[in-house]
Amino acid sequence: MKNIDILNNKKNNYFLSIGGIGEIGGNNYLYSFEGEQVIVDAGISFADDSLPGVDITIPDPYIFLNNTIKPKAMILTHAHEDHVGALEYYFDKIDFPIYCNKFTFSYIKHKFKKIPNFEKKFIIIKNNEIVKFNNFSFQLIPTTHSIPDPAGIFFQTSSGNIFHTGDWKIDKNPVTGDPFSYDNYEILRKEKIDLLVGDSTNAGVKEISRSESELDPSFDHLFKTLKGRIIVTCFSSNIARLKTVISNALKHDKKIFVVGRSIKRAINTAIEENLIDNFEILNEKLFDDYNRDKIVLICTGSQGEKNSALSKIANNTHNHIKLSAKDNIIFSSKEIPGNEKSISYLKNSFSYLGLNIISDEDEFVHVSGHPGIKEIKEFYSYLKPLSLIPMHGEYLHLKQHLKIAEDLDIQKTSLLLSGDICQLDLTNKNHKIVDQIIIDKLPVIQNSIIEEVNFINERGKILNNGIVSISCIINKNFDDLKMQIYDKGFPFPFNEQLIEEEIKEIFLNKILFIKDEFNEETLNNLLLDISKKTFSRNFSLKPEFFIHISLI
Amino acid sequence: MKNIDILNNKKNNYFLSIGGIGEIGGNNYLYSFEGEQVIVDAGISFADDSLPGVDITIPDPYIFLNNTIKPKAMILTHAHEDHVGALEYYFDKIDFPIYCNKFTFSYIKHKFKKIPNFEKKFIIIKNNEIVKFNNFSFQLIPTTHSIPDPAGIFFQTSSGNIFHTGDWKIDKNPVTGDPFSYDNYEILRKEKIDLLVGDSTNAGVKEISRSESELDPSFDHLFKTLKGRIIVTCFSSNIARLKTVISNALKHDKKIFVVGRSIKRAINTAIEENLIDNFEILNEKLFDDYNRDKIVLICTGSQGEKNSALSKIANNTHNHIKLSAKDNIIFSSKEIPGNEKSISYLKNSFSYLGLNIISDEDEFVHVSGHPGIKEIKEFYSYLKPLSLIPMHGEYLHLKQHLKIAEDLDIQKTSLLLSGDICQLDLTNKNHKIVDQIIIDKLPVIQNSIIEEVNFINERGKILNNGIVSISCIINKNFDDLKMQIYDKGFPFPFNEQLIEEEIKEIFLNKILFIKDEFNEETLNNLLLDISKKTFSRNFSLKPEFFIHISLI
Repeated sequence: MKNIDILNNKKNNYFLSIGGIGEIGGNNYLYSFEGEQVIVDAGISFADDSLPGVDITIPDPYIFLNNTIKPKAMILTHAHEDHVGALEYYFDKIDFPIYCNKFTFSYIKHKFKKIPNFEKKFIIIKNNEIVKFNNFSFQLIPTTHSIPDPAGIFFQTSSGNIFHTGDWKIDKNPVTGDPFSYDNYEILRKEKIDLLVGDSTNAGVKEISRSESELDPSFDHLFKTLKGRIIVTCFSSNIARLKTVISNALKHDKKIFVVGRSIKRAINTAIEENLIDNFEILNEKLFDDYNRDKIVLICTGSQGEKNSALSKIANNTHNHIKLSAKDNIIFSSKEIPGNEKSISYLKNSFSYLGLNIISDEDEFVHVSGHPGIKEIKEFYSYLKPLSLIPMHGEYLHLKQHLKIAEDLDIQKTSLLLSGDICQLDLTNKNHKIVDQIIIDKLPVIQNSIIEEVNFINERGKILNNGIVSISCIINKNFDDLKMQIYDKGFPFPFNEQLIEEEIKEIFLNKILFIKDEFNEETLNNLLLDISKKTFSRNFSLKPEFFIHISLI
Repeated sequence: MKNIDILNNKKNNYFLSIGGIGEIGGNNYLYSFEGEQVIVDAGISFADDSLPGVDITIPDPYIFLNNTIKPKAMILTHAHEDHVGALEYYFDKIDFPIYCNKFTFSYIKHKFKKIPNFEKKFIIIKNNEIVKFNNFSFQLIPTTHSIPDPAGIFFQTSSGNIFHTGDWKIDKNPVTGDPFSYDNYEILRKEKIDLLVGDSTNAGVKEISRSESELDPSFDHLFKTLKGRIIVTCFSSNIARLKTVISNALKHDKKIFVVGRSIKRAINTAIEENLIDNFEILNEKLFDDYNRDKIVLICTGSQGEKNSALSKIANNTHNHIKLSAKDNIIFSSKEIPGNEKSISYLKNSFSYLGLNIISDEDEFVHVSGHPGIKEIKEFYSYLKPLSLIPMHGEYLHLKQHLKIAEDLDIQKTSLLLSGDICQLDLTNKNHKIVDQIIIDKLPVIQNSIIEEVNFINERGKILNNGIVSISCIINKNFDDLKMQIYDKGFPFPFNEQLIEEEIKEIFLNKILFIKDEFNEETLNNLLLDISKKTFSRNFSLKPEFFIHISLI
């Protein structure tokens, strides 16, 4: 890891996105202050079609766990999976403290409870508390977002100050936690922000995000007027949304069912933290026992996840929850890019059951957790950052963020992608990319990080053309040859005997030419080559092959 | 095909959607008039993630090619792939005439030109020409849509009349072909429409589709003001759009490049049919030789198709076309559901090259080819259909179409899905589902229809867990056993020798119990069972297996 070694340079400051720039998800950033490194967030990404059979990936954590560098700390901004979800997969390898505030810890601690003394790796700090290291100090600056107690990070160094926004929006009445207040940012303005590293998710969105609390009258109205059962689906981490739904359900005297482990855990955490008042969650076995007009069911699965309870309910295969025509489902969430097709499938299934489908196209049932153009402009006009690096967004979003900086006359901006090592010149705001490293996204399978990803390529090839397995037993005189050919995932039916004869004949002919020197390996390569050509000639397809040669 | 036999019933009329109801794509309908059947359209669907490695599927044509029924004819409404694309895969099996109008034939004839006398299977008819069969007659009724010469079909029978709308919109100035005119529908209103089978694609869309010609000033303005090269991507079948782009390019003295086989063919067909004036298409090798401000490049690939020229251009891997920062790309097309992620990837790639990206969110560069709510209401208010079956749409769209019917007080409506055999009581408008058949979507691979689709399930299993191949040579005394284990697509590295020993030991132990009766098959099953359990125990994963047993 020669390239990474540059981060140990004691004269300079650096910024490196391990994940999170150039994508939505996988937030994982590294700052190095004159040789002292700190990691910010440890998020997962959802795998796309390029990783068949994989659900979750994480940015390669061995970038900072490889002993070339020795981070002093990790700081978590908030408890969303795209900021903390990767931690559990390498928690045992972490030998530096993890700083976060109380709610973030409460929300994620269950992931580590099987590990003895796990809590000793965490240092729970108060917002605005200054934590000092040799070359820098930092403090968490409270903000607002679609989860309680989110924070940005204000770094102070001898050469200048950095504000890492985390995920944020301006919500002056956020339902849970303190409202957004410029008072929290007074110190930043006083001390000056030499570099702002900021959330780009909605940097192209013209509408403002609106306050979470504005949804309250909307749910009030829906719960008052809708006839039939009401299903509400949202993200389990969206505690404020859950609070709005639950309080309005109780107000209208509804019976509340909650389906799904993650959402039950979220609600329980919120109750423990006094964010939601305690209430009775009914046993889903009793779902049919209550008056249809009195039922609210809360559920995750809004992205059309195939194995979710919501998908089972939609397909009418859930053990206890059966819906009927004239029931209602409210999608209180956005469509995450890439999930449009599964969400559409889900909605069609509910439509087939006869349900009334309500999404944010029909009613005001969702607000975003990220700032649109106007909010970013308002915030930056207050903060007056002297330079900007856009993070947390696809390339298009980063560019849209730069457009905002241009409008605001922020003179220095740097467009980076994950893997770019950027030397920060905070004095002159003259940040520059000094090196680039390739950072893999590692798949997580059965809770394990897979470092060798060749299996993905193999899957891809089989996926397109199928696979054939040939075993061949041959004696040393080449006068006795037994062959078996099997296939899977190969689309064309074929006469195995004919193909076998074709391969055998060419194989035996060619063997005559390598009489001098042969072993199982040379024969294996020969048979592989002949088999490939035979299939390609007969079917114009190139399946993958297993070749078993046994010389007896 | 017992169920299908009902269509031969000489007393009744039936309607069956083979594909196209419950989905966008795969339009393929069957009408049976007292035992005389006619097929309407023969469209393809794009395969989704549930069919790994497959690009195209078609509704099983053996429903009507199986000799249980003997269709009298096929009628094509227009030349879009989701209405005619399947025909080429079973053209040789068709022994009934295919009726269509002149442009539709011109547009699709290249697909069949290798087949001697292919044109003899087609009967080119004029719009409004009445074609008579024993139990029914039909005529093509010209309409407007995003391709020249689209038509609906008006069927007349002794018991009543049916209007099959095809794809349509109200376009009073469609750039190519005749404008939409109610005069064309006078006969329908006079004769009465007992049943209307109608396009549901945009039945939930509040905006009207707007005329194709309204795009003209928009492209005029863009071509006048944009600096740098201009790439325009749209569907190759959208001849009117191509005409608008080309005429404005010529007006502003641009050099025109066209990349992609399908779009070149479309333009040539349009020129042959006098729909577009002849012009000079420049050789793409000369792309770099012209002034950047003078270049318009027209290209398909707007859906992010991976192997398209546009994707290559976006990734800067195209042999001749290299773009630079400050060039422009106009997406003159809609996002087809399911393609959002690939389109987003494409746009990000262009953004990374520095291009200015223009889509219908930014400028008025696309109109839909299907009618929104207001157009449907206007049209039906004129036609006054007495009953309605929604077609061409997902379930949600069909339901939205029913909502319109409700608003218009169309008393009788039937919500069908593909495979529902619907008996049409045109006299009493009392249509009812009398049977249901399951109609597969058959994958097309290498231009062949694959009837046995088990290979898809096999691919799916390998995709999730990988595949292992084990060959085992064993002598009849069980004292000499040679084993080889290979894997592909399996995520966990493992010590082959240890696994082999584990499997061998259990295998040899178990063999002792089946001493009496064994053969390669029983040994094969035994080894498969042991291998499955061994992998599951060691890795909590269930890969697929090939097992080769050789008793020597």
